[in-house]
Amino acid sequence: MKKNKDKRPLVVIALGGNAIKQADEEGTVEEQFANVTETCKQLVEMNHLGYKLIITHGNGPQAGNLLIQQEEGKDRVPPQPLDVVGAMTQGQIGYMFQNSLRDLFLEEERSIPIATVLTQVLVDPNDPDFADPSKPVGPFYTKETALQYKEDKGYQVKKVKPNGEKNWRRVVPSPEPKEIIEADCISSLIDARAIVIASGGGGIPVKEMPNGTYKGLEAVIDKDKAGNVLAQATNADIFLILTDVSNAYINFGKDDQKPLEKITVTESEKYYEEGQFLKGSMGPKITAAIRFVKSGGEKAIITSLDHAVEALQEKTGTIITKE
Amino acid sequence: MKKNKDKRPLVVIALGGNAIKQADEEGTVEEQFANVTETCKQLVEMNHLGYKLIITHGNGPQAGNLLIQQEEGKDRVPPQPLDVVGAMTQGQIGYMFQNSLRDLFLEEERSIPIATVLTQVLVDPNDPDFADPSKPVGPFYTKETALQYKEDKGYQVKKVKPNGEKNWRRVVPSPEPKEIIEADCISSLIDARAIVIASGGGGIPVKEMPNGTYKGLEAVIDKDKAGNVLAQATNADIFLILTDVSNAYINFGKDDQKPLEKITVTESEKYYEEGQFLKGSMGPKITAAIRFVKSGGEKAIITSLDHAVEALQEKTGTIITKE
Repeated sequence: MKKNKDKRPLVVIALGGNAIKQADEEGTVEEQFANVTETCKQLVEMNHLGYKLIITHGNGPQAGNLLIQQEEGKDRVPPQPLDVVGAMTQGQIGYMFQNSLRDLFLEEERSIPIATVLTQVLVDPNDPDFADPSKPVGPFYTKETALQYKEDKGYQVKKVKPNGEKNWRRVVPSPEPKEIIEADCISSLIDARAIVIASGGGGIPVKEMPNGTYKGLEAVIDKDKAGNVLAQATNADIFLILTDVSNAYINFGKDDQKPLEKITVTESEKYYEEGQFLKGSMGPKITAAIRFVKSGGEKAIITSLDHAVEALQEKTGTIITKE
Repeated sequence: MKKNKDKRPLVVIALGGNAIKQADEEGTVEEQFANVTETCKQLVEMNHLGYKLIITHGNGPQAGNLLIQQEEGKDRVPPQPLDVVGAMTQGQIGYMFQNSLRDLFLEEERSIPIATVLTQVLVDPNDPDFADPSKPVGPFYTKETALQYKEDKGYQVKKVKPNGEKNWRRVVPSPEPKEIIEADCISSLIDARAIVIASGGGGIPVKEMPNGTYKGLEAVIDKDKAGNVLAQATNADIFLILTDVSNAYINFGKDDQKPLEKITVTESEKYYEEGQFLKGSMGPKITAAIRFVKSGGEKAIITSLDHAVEALQEKTGTIITKE
């Protein structure tokens, strides 16, 4: 493979859940491949524009489905913990992306190296989220079932909807990502002109043990925050966060709501402190974007999949830069 | 990462099922990590001896467990096809290896790049095994259930044991592997001095469509045969096939049974044609070993995990060379 210096800018793209499974879908393989193919068309456009690409993605619906299957099969097969579930969904989703991307390039009669690198992400075992887990995972339960799982398995459970028969869920810690363990391998592949899929589902969370080894955890890392650590570790120029809206907004849902276009880190931090961004949704994306630019990244972009290519050309989207 | 020419010999190691899950185990995460750690100790020894390493492995028990979970959950969650199941188990097993290997190196205060590369393997859509599937997968069924699945899902099913209530299984094609799609990325990582886990479970089987794209298949590729294609594609020096016996045998199970030590390709082919090797067990290993040496590989070794390091030093095992 050629080792000539590749001066194209590197963009890390964090894909939202709807890039793989729409909310109203069951999650059949046909549905998921169809969504992934549509997403990959945008990624191929970015390649045409002259960007090196690292792709990261969520895994919520896929992990949720696997947790249901594990639960239904638990009398016959031992369920695997969340670190293994994360690894399995990285395989599942990575395969769909590398297969679909390759097909689109083959249609152009181009052969580009593409690989999914299974990724572990180091977290701090003293992260405050371990004491007060915040991330709901897996199926909804009745209060009775939830409390039974708490008793039997030591699950932390919470009421997550005010009403309904099944309105409880298991909650797990969502600690801050500190380090991408496989960053060296991801960078080697980028140097070899490959397109890389990495850190899916926020990565497999691991913590350092007293003896210096790394152990997997029953936790889920925010994929956009992990995406920022990945973008920093690979010296990316641009961090592109895709979601279901074309822009971040201030005064969202009010009469005077206003889409944010080009803004500075300082402005972003001011809006964040005002509470302009929803905690479980736009908030972590803005946090991840701010961290990336503050660490020296050229720009972070928040937009939707169908605006992504235009946003890279600065025609749309919320674009955060240093000044 | 350093790009100095790395002249260490490259060995591709194909691990047997007991490297991950023992036959009498259920497959809990604790059991599997314990087995993988024992296996990784041997791999670290090979690193100490000065070999570059690519690791491939089976996935039968893990895929079997996932198929059971999918079946039990089928009323709530759509089951995924075998190509996706293969991708998921590559994630599951790759994670356990890269985590355990890293830990063993950390105990020596060494940091070595380690990555699992999700691997697709091209097969010929005209392979004769598509017409007469030979590979049993997933759970055992009663005859009644098996025939019901045949009717409902178009499964091919076969009676696989003479007796017992559940003695039928689904059978799928096991086509010959032709090409490792991600070979370029695997080689780039080896050039970057990484240890690579690849082509788990024989790889995700894909076939070329009339329009030139690649589509995943409901099939399972023999992991040793895929390991040979991987070893050829990466210009490996040695192909090391690990199984549950220290040697291949002639006259196996008879009074005059004899372990094979150093033998030539010509001798191996003669024994193969005599029917000395069991079709579903030692046969494909010998075939894979012969193919590797005939393609120009220095030697292929068949032995057990606990003899692997000694076999690399030519002290034990069945060692096949050209002359």
